Amino acid sequence: MSTGSISSPSTSSSTTRLTSIVSHLSDARPKVVICRHLGPAMPLLQDRKDIEVVLWPEDRSCERSWLLDNIRGAAGVLVLLGDKVNEELLEAAGPNLRVVSTMSVGYEHIDLPLMARRKIRVGYTPDVLTEADLSVMLALMAGRNDGAAYSLVRNGDWAKPKFAWSPFTFCGPQLSATPSSPTRTVGFLGFGRIAQATLARLIPFGITHCLYAGSPSSRPDTARDAALQATHKLKVLERVDADRLARESDVLFVLTPGGTETYHLVDAAFLRKMKPMSVLINTSRGSVVDSDALATALREKWIWGAGLDVVEGEPLITEDHPLVKEPQCVMVPHIGSATFQTRLDMATRAINNLYGGLFGEDMPAELGRQ
Amino acid sequence: MSTGSISSPSTSSSTTRLTSIVSHLSDARPKVVICRHLGPAMPLLQDRKDIEVVLWPEDRSCERSWLLDNIRGAAGVLVLLGDKVNEELLEAAGPNLRVVSTMSVGYEHIDLPLMARRKIRVGYTPDVLTEADLSVMLALMAGRNDGAAYSLVRNGDWAKPKFAWSPFTFCGPQLSATPSSPTRTVGFLGFGRIAQATLARLIPFGITHCLYAGSPSSRPDTARDAALQATHKLKVLERVDADRLARESDVLFVLTPGGTETYHLVDAAFLRKMKPMSVLINTSRGSVVDSDALATALREKWIWGAGLDVVEGEPLITEDHPLVKEPQCVMVPHIGSATFQTRLDMATRAINNLYGGLFGEDMPAELGRQ
Repeated sequence: MSTGSISSPSTSSSTTRLTSIVSHLSDARPKVVICRHLGPAMPLLQDRKDIEVVLWPEDRSCERSWLLDNIRGAAGVLVLLGDKVNEELLEAAGPNLRVVSTMSVGYEHIDLPLMARRKIRVGYTPDVLTEADLSVMLALMAGRNDGAAYSLVRNGDWAKPKFAWSPFTFCGPQLSATPSSPTRTVGFLGFGRIAQATLARLIPFGITHCLYAGSPSSRPDTARDAALQATHKLKVLERVDADRLARESDVLFVLTPGGTETYHLVDAAFLRKMKPMSVLINTSRGSVVDSDALATALREKWIWGAGLDVVEGEPLITEDHPLVKEPQCVMVPHIGSATFQTRLDMATRAINNLYGGLFGEDMPAELGRQ
Repeated sequence: MSTGSISSPSTSSSTTRLTSIVSHLSDARPKVVICRHLGPAMPLLQDRKDIEVVLWPEDRSCERSWLLDNIRGAAGVLVLLGDKVNEELLEAAGPNLRVVSTMSVGYEHIDLPLMARRKIRVGYTPDVLTEADLSVMLALMAGRNDGAAYSLVRNGDWAKPKFAWSPFTFCGPQLSATPSSPTRTVGFLGFGRIAQATLARLIPFGITHCLYAGSPSSRPDTARDAALQATHKLKVLERVDADRLARESDVLFVLTPGGTETYHLVDAAFLRKMKPMSVLINTSRGSVVDSDALATALREKWIWGAGLDVVEGEPLITEDHPLVKEPQCVMVPHIGSATFQTRLDMATRAINNLYGGLFGEDMPAELGRQ
């Protein structure tokens, strides 16, 4: 499905033919391949007359064979997390390709060294803060025994005699501080923008202490920490090691990048150090948390509960997955950025990155350019 | 089950007998009936040597016949929402009864005019702010399409081909403001302590406007409103009529008392005025919202979603209830105060109210005394 078409080369006299070829070259609109319909952002592509848009026509992930066929001669491609951008794709595209734009925060699917060698610019969409909303939601749900409570209603068991309410039914640890329980410690494994946005959202719940563990390669930023502590009127805001983070956090948020450096940072040894009434929230990358260890921790009550937006091996998570079966584990299907506003912002950003690369202009968010 | 016992009257010589009776009278410990085991708060009752505690021995609601038998001669009774305190109970208790303490925020189960006539003091446990936590949780869940997302994982459908992700799958309206969508209006039907605690928790999400409708009998408090607006740096904080509240709110919280004055304030006419992308949250009383009208509003997409902790007719809510069947309705089983900290605070408060009434002292929270 194309919204325009390449002008057909003339076949008449040589003059006309030359004119036609010159016209074709000068008028030639760069071809861009769009690997997924972008919903309400599509007019930003379809209303442009200076490009040729080739759009994967179905409402599912783009087929590789279609992409390899259609990318031939393209100047740009807009991809999603499932579309591998590798040697094979570049060979199929040919030398015209000058920009790859991904509508995603992650870029594990793009071979960045290869892009650098070929001088192909790469755009992505990092400015997503909605994981902070989701982190707060999951912290509230995991503490509230929400899985069991929600299922009770959905299954129609609220009305049944087998549901016997008692004063401590469905109780869990409370996120908000109270006069009789006045301190709360939140911990962050990784303390970037989303962690700080999550912290800000938790302050009115009465959070008093904030601990975080940063990447070993990052340097402590005491001035930033002092400013944050003052802004939020916290008793403590401190960079600590993983051991203390595990031991002292009431609610612990995993908000690190993925990859080998953070693989299974939260393992059985880490979970065993956590408080029995603590909850663990992961809205970053599944690989950071050892799923089997977490299932054991929940089953044996090393910790109170967990809230996960991401999990190792997703989306191949079946109903007999050990974490799906754990009643104190709340799991949602990687919906961190799933709001109309954010996804529209991401699609718009991805399209503007594409245009920046196509026309040799600035890209709103370019990888590998500082 | 009693933790103590009344001393047996002696049957020997008259002197001994008189001594025994005097001793019995002077030592007579007031009897209190406790209608439910109070979990970790029980030591506050069982460790007291100056009262006789009679405790309903089962882990379910107290049977009426047991209560009517056991309350005879009691000086105090500690009840829950399901235990009606009426003429029948007072007749069974006899003239000794001087205090009724309920472990609940509501007191619809207690005949207050009757208590006043009999000069029986009544305690309750109003200072519960956890509904604010739950209101935030439900607002996040209802906007996030959480019902569908959560069920997808729980049913094992995340792994199945029939789940076809697309860039706008599971999207809903975003609670947090963004640079491209910078204003958010929250509305409150009822603007008491819990509403204000909910507002405070929402501020870091980027809320810019707050509208509320108060009870018609309450007077506007412009000084309080100006102070709140300044504290929260809101562009607008304004008391409005129900019409404007419905038309302008992105997220609307029902936080009114129950009863005839607020019955079905949220009806079809109200819901028809709301924005198509708005969500309605009810954590106060089911009777305020017309369930049938809300189910229609969701089915016909007058509004985006709903989050309910309370619903008309609860707990007799079966799986074919029209709101349980609505995918955009998130319903939890009245767990507003269901945290260990809050329920322990409520139990402690109820016990201290009981002691205040028993021994003619102050009660921490007494009904009908200003």
